[in-house]
Amino acid sequence: MWSFEFILEFIGTFAFAISGIRLASAKEFDWFGAYVVGVATAIGGGTIRDVLLDVTPFWMTDPVYLLCSGFALLWVIVFRRMLVHMNNTIFYFDAIGLALFTVVGIEKTLALGYPMWVAIIMGTLTGAAGGVIRDILINEVPLIFRKEIYAVACVAGGMIYWICLKTIGSGMTTQVIAGVSVVVIRWLSVRFRICLPTLKNDQP
Amino acid sequence: MWSFEFILEFIGTFAFAISGIRLASAKEFDWFGAYVVGVATAIGGGTIRDVLLDVTPFWMTDPVYLLCSGFALLWVIVFRRMLVHMNNTIFYFDAIGLALFTVVGIEKTLALGYPMWVAIIMGTLTGAAGGVIRDILINEVPLIFRKEIYAVACVAGGMIYWICLKTIGSGMTTQVIAGVSVVVIRWLSVRFRICLPTLKNDQP
Amino acid sequence: MWSFEFILEFIGTFAFAISGIRLASAKEFDWFGAYVVGVATAIGGGTIRDVLLDVTPFWMTDPVYLLCSGFALLWVIVFRRMLVHMNNTIFYFDAIGLALFTVVGIEKTLALGYPMWVAIIMGTLTGAAGGVIRDILINEVPLIFRKEIYAVACVAGGMIYWICLKTIGSGMTTQVIAGVSVVVIRWLSVRFRICLPTLKNDQP
Repeated sequence: MWSFEFILEFIGTFAFAISGIRLASAKEFDWFGAYVVGVATAIGGGTIRDVLLDVTPFWMTDPVYLLCSGFALLWVIVFRRMLVHMNNTIFYFDAIGLALFTVVGIEKTLALGYPMWVAIIMGTLTGAAGGVIRDILINEVPLIFRKEIYAVACVAGGMIYWICLKTIGSGMTTQVIAGVSVVVIRWLSVRFRICLPTLKNDQP
Repeated sequence: MWSFEFILEFIGTFAFAISGIRLASAKEFDWFGAYVVGVATAIGGGTIRDVLLDVTPFWMTDPVYLLCSGFALLWVIVFRRMLVHMNNTIFYFDAIGLALFTVVGIEKTLALGYPMWVAIIMGTLTGAAGGVIRDILINEVPLIFRKEIYAVACVAGGMIYWICLKTIGSGMTTQVIAGVSVVVIRWLSVRFRICLPTLKNDQP
Repeated sequence: MWSFEFILEFIGTFAFAISGIRLASAKEFDWFGAYVVGVATAIGGGTIRDVLLDVTPFWMTDPVYLLCSGFALLWVIVFRRMLVHMNNTIFYFDAIGLALFTVVGIEKTLALGYPMWVAIIMGTLTGAAGGVIRDILINEVPLIFRKEIYAVACVAGGMIYWICLKTIGSGMTTQVIAGVSVVVIRWLSVRFRICLPTLKNDQP
């Protein structure tokens, strides 16, 4: 079981790093810059969570996350021409990462004794804040504030986790239901181009 | 008395969130994005302060700050056409928030045993850093580094707090004098368009 | 000996602050804004390191870093026309700062019991993250991700530190060899315009 979760975590980290590296490449960052943006995308959300929770950032106890991001850099360097045809796969990897990071963030926060509403925020930060850091580093307006439902999928997944926790208790089933919800919401929002409403500009 | 301070804190949070939400709207952020920018503006400064002081971020112990920001979002959605005519009110709300956040930041830092110069920095961060985070999130050059006196009003308020502390001691009077100074300095700087000098560009 | 290290630290802080203040000036920041960007450049990397390591940020225990940045602001205000002719000196000051900050970051991390790979990351963050914060504050794409070798000099210096630690042990010699390597790598990369390869844009 540890091994299955580990594979999901690797897939998520890999997909997040790929998204950072590709967007950095589009801005003509060098290899090191692309790697840093990839790492920041992959571990940024969890780092903010751990700093707010006042625990040691998760990647400082195990180099696997940095190695995984390095592997993603290598992948992009070698297969960059094929990547365009892999957008679908990358989308699912990213959604799996988002789902897993959200559940991991929620459970870590609950384990430290915080109430559920803090856990949902931390789950959302774990899943979505890396993408915001990525966009700040490449000097773009954060994508997740303007495009399809992304962070909101984490919030919804967190609420579904809460309902499951109240009804069927903690454990695998709750984790899987919440995680799958995040993936499904992401898939639906992209498939049917579901966006949140925007506020019209009211500035003179 | 708790109730009066609470009302001021609510007003300040509300005004800060409004400023974030309005600027995010101008960039066509969706509701969620606007809410995140609003929250970041309202609680960002205090969060940086609490992380630097190594205490639990204040908003993680009480959901009122996030609810207040949600209320600000609702307000902007419903009354956005009227907001243009409310610029004066919003300015005073913002100045009250700035003053209160500065005083709260100073007192929290002093209570942890830090010297006064650290407290003034933390007061200034509490008051002004939220606006910097807001401008980073909407991908603009931070306004407070270029426009009228803003963060400097916090620094000045902090120094006045220091003088009062040395002369009349801690307590309500010192808090009120320092807070009112911040509001007055903000009002004077906007009323008479007082700006700090800029450095001429010396790059070739 | 303390005095020699202190002089190097002052030089590094001064050079980093100058770089922040000059780039802020080019964006027409006011004096306060330029000072904040200067301070953020000088102490930002070390602050991120200390927050991740969960220790009190170094500048909160000694006002010398903020005073040094204030001195840099004064310097730029008074001598701004001469600064263009001092680019060489500023380059060496900056390289010395980078080298010293890297070594300081490594040793502080090792002293807290972290493994060497974490120490190299912290050394690199101490040296290079301030420049990233500077570029985020002035709303530019971070320079160090696109120009000559900069952060990579910290990584290389960290690895050389590691080799020295394994062979000749900790102490002055190891510090000096690692620090000088960083300066030499920086000098070589600028002298011969050595850049890392970039990833071609693969986005459609």
